[in-house]
Amino acid sequence: MVLRIDPDRMRTDFEQLAAMGGTADGGIARTTFSEAHFEARAWFLERGRAAGLETHVDSAANHSLRLPAGDRSARTLLLGSHLDSVRRGGRYDGALGVLCALEVLRAVQDAGLALPVALEAIDFTDEEGTLVGELGSWALTGELSAEILAAPRGGRDLLVSELARVGLTEEGLLAARRDPSTLAGFLELHIEQGPVLERAGTDIGIVTGIIGSSSFQVVFEGDARHAGTTPMEARRDAALGAAGFVLGVRETVTRDFPGCVATVGDIQIEPGSFNVVPGRARLRMECRSLDPEELDALELALAERARAEAATYGLEVELRRVGRWEPAPTDERVRAAIELAAGALGLTTMELPSGAGHDAQALAQVTPSGMIFVPSAGGVSHDPAEHTAWEDCVNGANVLLGAAVDLARSG
Amino acid sequence: MVLRIDPDRMRTDFEQLAAMGGTADGGIARTTFSEAHFEARAWFLERGRAAGLETHVDSAANHSLRLPAGDRSARTLLLGSHLDSVRRGGRYDGALGVLCALEVLRAVQDAGLALPVALEAIDFTDEEGTLVGELGSWALTGELSAEILAAPRGGRDLLVSELARVGLTEEGLLAARRDPSTLAGFLELHIEQGPVLERAGTDIGIVTGIIGSSSFQVVFEGDARHAGTTPMEARRDAALGAAGFVLGVRETVTRDFPGCVATVGDIQIEPGSFNVVPGRARLRMECRSLDPEELDALELALAERARAEAATYGLEVELRRVGRWEPAPTDERVRAAIELAAGALGLTTMELPSGAGHDAQALAQVTPSGMIFVPSAGGVSHDPAEHTAWEDCVNGANVLLGAAVDLARSG
Repeated sequence: MVLRIDPDRMRTDFEQLAAMGGTADGGIARTTFSEAHFEARAWFLERGRAAGLETHVDSAANHSLRLPAGDRSARTLLLGSHLDSVRRGGRYDGALGVLCALEVLRAVQDAGLALPVALEAIDFTDEEGTLVGELGSWALTGELSAEILAAPRGGRDLLVSELARVGLTEEGLLAARRDPSTLAGFLELHIEQGPVLERAGTDIGIVTGIIGSSSFQVVFEGDARHAGTTPMEARRDAALGAAGFVLGVRETVTRDFPGCVATVGDIQIEPGSFNVVPGRARLRMECRSLDPEELDALELALAERARAEAATYGLEVELRRVGRWEPAPTDERVRAAIELAAGALGLTTMELPSGAGHDAQALAQVTPSGMIFVPSAGGVSHDPAEHTAWEDCVNGANVLLGAAVDLARSG
Repeated sequence: MVLRIDPDRMRTDFEQLAAMGGTADGGIARTTFSEAHFEARAWFLERGRAAGLETHVDSAANHSLRLPAGDRSARTLLLGSHLDSVRRGGRYDGALGVLCALEVLRAVQDAGLALPVALEAIDFTDEEGTLVGELGSWALTGELSAEILAAPRGGRDLLVSELARVGLTEEGLLAARRDPSTLAGFLELHIEQGPVLERAGTDIGIVTGIIGSSSFQVVFEGDARHAGTTPMEARRDAALGAAGFVLGVRETVTRDFPGCVATVGDIQIEPGSFNVVPGRARLRMECRSLDPEELDALELALAERARAEAATYGLEVELRRVGRWEPAPTDERVRAAIELAAGALGLTTMELPSGAGHDAQALAQVTPSGMIFVPSAGGVSHDPAEHTAWEDCVNGANVLLGAAVDLARSG
């Protein structure tokens, strides 16, 4: 008999969770350590307690529910994702994976199944990078370093003040490492956040690997001058360098790095008035590739392009890498378990890489890891309009359940 | 005998004023209705009272000192500029003109000169456009309209809340008009804010006219999508439209509108993260010309360019004009008085247009007006590094004194 989760119970949970940080446009504003984020995490622990599960919060603020094995020294199979969102995000990204993990633990418990490993549903801290990006999962693997914390994605000042505000310490983050020998593996269900599954009409995506990414601060520096009295030819306008670079990033990646992506996601101009020629432009840029060597080459090409644009417009430019996440292939045995579970449910599958970073990227460094994708309507994500058909959510949860039980039994 | 101002007295005033809103880098942060702005305006009235001048504040918060004529019904020759600054400005822009006007009134008083018109040193409200731009001077001319107040440069919300906070009303602004028949003219001393006088080695600039300008909000709209999972060719990236337009503005003006300037002074990206393709880009753009018809044509060309860039990148675009200041020629008789006064002091002069907007632009619509420019070191302005040699400041004040007395006598 194929085990199944309780779709009504999961639906009730989904609706409750979506109200926390819910915005008028149907989206979610639940950035790391916001009030809504704390509310969602407290709710998650409460749902676990109500189901009789053990709860645990580690020194990186990762929140866990545990269904122990009969043998208390047994290893742990982790299932989960994250409850934080981008600033104007959707209701499925991360949250669905945490809800499905919770539901799998309850379904196993309800079925009275005795497994040789413990199951743990985990909500990782700061996956989206309000502060660092995949903060909790890297902390858990022990690969978070003082170097990363010295130049975090959201800026050093924000990290320092936020940790102090919520009562965490950098020592605590670095001490959250768990011994890999205590782990039996990691399984993450997530929405695809792209259009591939929907276009192919496929139920379940089996992720082959997670694309690596690098993020940079790029600052062009010119002279802030009066916009009325400074002739066009006498200007050193930082916005021109920024503009040339935005177009240059696109040209470089589409021409020389097919299959990769690169994005200038933010531009901040100083002083930023109608009547002052921009003196400084600060850009946030990132690039992604499945291959570490290609990612190196892409980084170099974009840095070169930034310098060329600065030279064209007589500007100074400074690039600072603020993060790099290595490409991470998933585990073959885990992929097979997903395939088997989907097949038993009569669902169609396809293999595909993940263009987005995920906590599985960190976990794959230390324990056999895999990811289950469910379709994203229109490929929309990081947007209030993010949507996955409820049937696809239930299918994904059932595949997660089947694969988890399979891996637990063989673990 | 040629009258002269007291340079030591003016120097003391200059140092005191520069401390109000003074920043560590030697600049000034004295935006409209900031604490430092209130402090400077109160200080200005106090200096006038100490000199035995009459003080007056009108319903647009323009601050005045008056040296009445023997005949109380005599007309008034206005001298002045503004004490507000841009967000990170310098110590000379506006402030020098107000100080010189104060000094001229004191010098005339000290000399016991009886003039057939009253002299008034005036500090106009919000020249720099924190709220509206040339707000006080347009109010005084009666050409401020409800339409301008409905869509001000700094945004309607800010205007409404700031007026309420400082106890002003829109009715008061519109009622600040003074009957032009009571005015004998307007003279404004100002730093050039450009490199022309310094490069020519000339002491005094006689302004032929003030360039007109138009400012626009330009919004490009695409789709905010996940930067990792959305292939380059599937994007509608608002930053691409913004970038194309920034370069396009420069190309259009340098190629088709020589002598004009146009500037994209600010770019704001939404949502503005590393990992989200920009969904919206809000730009602040302005363009300037000495000729009203050329300004029309430039506006049209830039709007067309914005639409072309939007089409290229599959975006929506919306342009909204948030202000237009018509070009304003200065008065021939006033220019001649400046020329004469400079000659009597043995100073060299040249005629030049003003690329920057000034309160004289408003006054020129209703009364014979002119402007005296003094050199700006390196052409730098709207920047903490703004500087004018003290000797040039004194020269300018003496020319203002001579021209004012000449105009007053013939007025």
